[in-house]
Amino acid sequence: MSKVILLQKRPAGKPVLTDFEFKNESVAQPGKNELLLKTQYVSVDPYLRGRMSDAKSYVPPFKVGDPIQSGIVAEVTESNHPDFKEGDFVSGNLDWKEIQVSDGKGLTVIDKEAASPSAYLGILGMTGLTAYLGLTEIGKPQKGETLVVSGAAGAVGSVVGQIGKILGCKVIGIAGSEKKIALLKDKFGFDEAINYKTTEDMQQAIKDAAPEGVDIYFDNVGGEISDAVLANINKFGRVPVCGAISLYNNTEVSLGPRVQAILVKNSALMQGFIVSNFADKFPEAIKTLTTWLKEGKLNYTETIVEGFDEIPQAFIDLFEGKNEGKMIVKV
Amino acid sequence: MSKVILLQKRPAGKPVLTDFEFKNESVAQPGKNELLLKTQYVSVDPYLRGRMSDAKSYVPPFKVGDPIQSGIVAEVTESNHPDFKEGDFVSGNLDWKEIQVSDGKGLTVIDKEAASPSAYLGILGMTGLTAYLGLTEIGKPQKGETLVVSGAAGAVGSVVGQIGKILGCKVIGIAGSEKKIALLKDKFGFDEAINYKTTEDMQQAIKDAAPEGVDIYFDNVGGEISDAVLANINKFGRVPVCGAISLYNNTEVSLGPRVQAILVKNSALMQGFIVSNFADKFPEAIKTLTTWLKEGKLNYTETIVEGFDEIPQAFIDLFEGKNEGKMIVKV
Repeated sequence: MSKVILLQKRPAGKPVLTDFEFKNESVAQPGKNELLLKTQYVSVDPYLRGRMSDAKSYVPPFKVGDPIQSGIVAEVTESNHPDFKEGDFVSGNLDWKEIQVSDGKGLTVIDKEAASPSAYLGILGMTGLTAYLGLTEIGKPQKGETLVVSGAAGAVGSVVGQIGKILGCKVIGIAGSEKKIALLKDKFGFDEAINYKTTEDMQQAIKDAAPEGVDIYFDNVGGEISDAVLANINKFGRVPVCGAISLYNNTEVSLGPRVQAILVKNSALMQGFIVSNFADKFPEAIKTLTTWLKEGKLNYTETIVEGFDEIPQAFIDLFEGKNEGKMIVKV
Repeated sequence: MSKVILLQKRPAGKPVLTDFEFKNESVAQPGKNELLLKTQYVSVDPYLRGRMSDAKSYVPPFKVGDPIQSGIVAEVTESNHPDFKEGDFVSGNLDWKEIQVSDGKGLTVIDKEAASPSAYLGILGMTGLTAYLGLTEIGKPQKGETLVVSGAAGAVGSVVGQIGKILGCKVIGIAGSEKKIALLKDKFGFDEAINYKTTEDMQQAIKDAAPEGVDIYFDNVGGEISDAVLANINKFGRVPVCGAISLYNNTEVSLGPRVQAILVKNSALMQGFIVSNFADKFPEAIKTLTTWLKEGKLNYTETIVEGFDEIPQAFIDLFEGKNEGKMIVKV
């Protein structure tokens, strides 16, 4: 028997616990070329909110009554598959189940020696790749430029800022608590950090922190914070739009200053992306990230919550900013 | 003596005649390496509104009390410069003066045989280059894709749509009168044309015209029209943002739906530009445009107003959509 977490109903606005349903199901024996997986670490991510809606998006929506899926590190407990053996740890997109059968497709065996298994859901997984490829492929940072990162203490944001520093940029982070601000400066080496919750005039605060203007804005949040940064964008500015966490839970369209005049005035670029757009660059990116990690140039923070039953609450807490860095549930 | 038009004061919102001042000045004799120019055709363009404000932009603002400048075709009436001779027609960025002295910098002698002189202010000048380079360099049209153009009956828009057709796209134009709609379909070969002034639900109208979604949106206008198009953008959609005429005269910031969530959801790109960003591509682009023009593949419309004194009114009329295609004053 295995516990499984299903989408009970599509969230209206902010997700709540009753949007999810726990069930017990019996687990089949793995057949030929199949393996049995025991979930160890589960990644919860803001983008999952999008898949819970029935709207056109880059990945198909979850079906009501079906299990939720996300990035998971699991242990192989039984294998009839030539590419995997008992005791291997694998990462991949899997169901929110304690135990599940897999045909091995899309799973990667991870190197437990190079980093902790949970790192493969974060800095060496989708979040690290998102930070690295969004920044380098769209942001195209040049030495001496000014980079602003919103959601800067988050899993992606904290890596973006550190890569910005490695590549020679002045880096300004925006986050929502004094604890996060301290983290940005002390642990992640940001040059400046702005607490948007205690700052009255964000546009002016960004101007003060970046008197030479903003060349790259790595946008994780959308909304008013982004309005304030865009008002400071430089000529030929670049805005990788990675996420819009402030907009995902809105049931109505969020209004703000239109950006067209700013884009024309500055010949600036805004580009939304998901990491899989750059799939051909993954091997090179993982190699670079692993090198920087081993050299001690990259730090990362995880918020690890314990217990399979806590997965839905951990997901909900993302929208309250309760995580520092990658939010992971250890089963 | 020569008439000259000065910026009397910076417009507040929509420009009005009293923002301009006419003066008479005496004209000096051209010195060594100088030439005397007699203005023949004057281009009036929406972007000039930006230069009349005292705001940071891609070109420095006009100074109050100084002459306005724009694209002009002039006749050389006297030359002490080795590169120009009497009777040449030149194009360049010149003052709003009947007669002026120039050192020849930035002036190009035009080929009066290849096309009418006014074409060098339009389809073979900045507007044609803007259409061609914005569409090809940012829009990157592929055969079979759907292209939507706003301000479609305007100088740039009408050329964008025709180039879209030459390159194998389905082309949908948006304009503001039945006369313009007819022009788009009959003269410029657009597949579909939508009159935004008589259409209640623009988002639905675009969906109906482009059931397969919008791959490229060439945006000349900003504002609500753009909101409606962006709501229909496809995955990997591209939005060259060429102008935002609907926003230029606003004295307050114009609010609309924030675009971040749309960009992320579709991995879409919005990029503001001015034609000079692509200056290295001008020779190739003019060659292509001239070929298409000679082959009869490109039509263009001019609204020609007569008389030097009419320049300010012609400029003001742009914001009322009174022009069809390029607005030019013949002196």
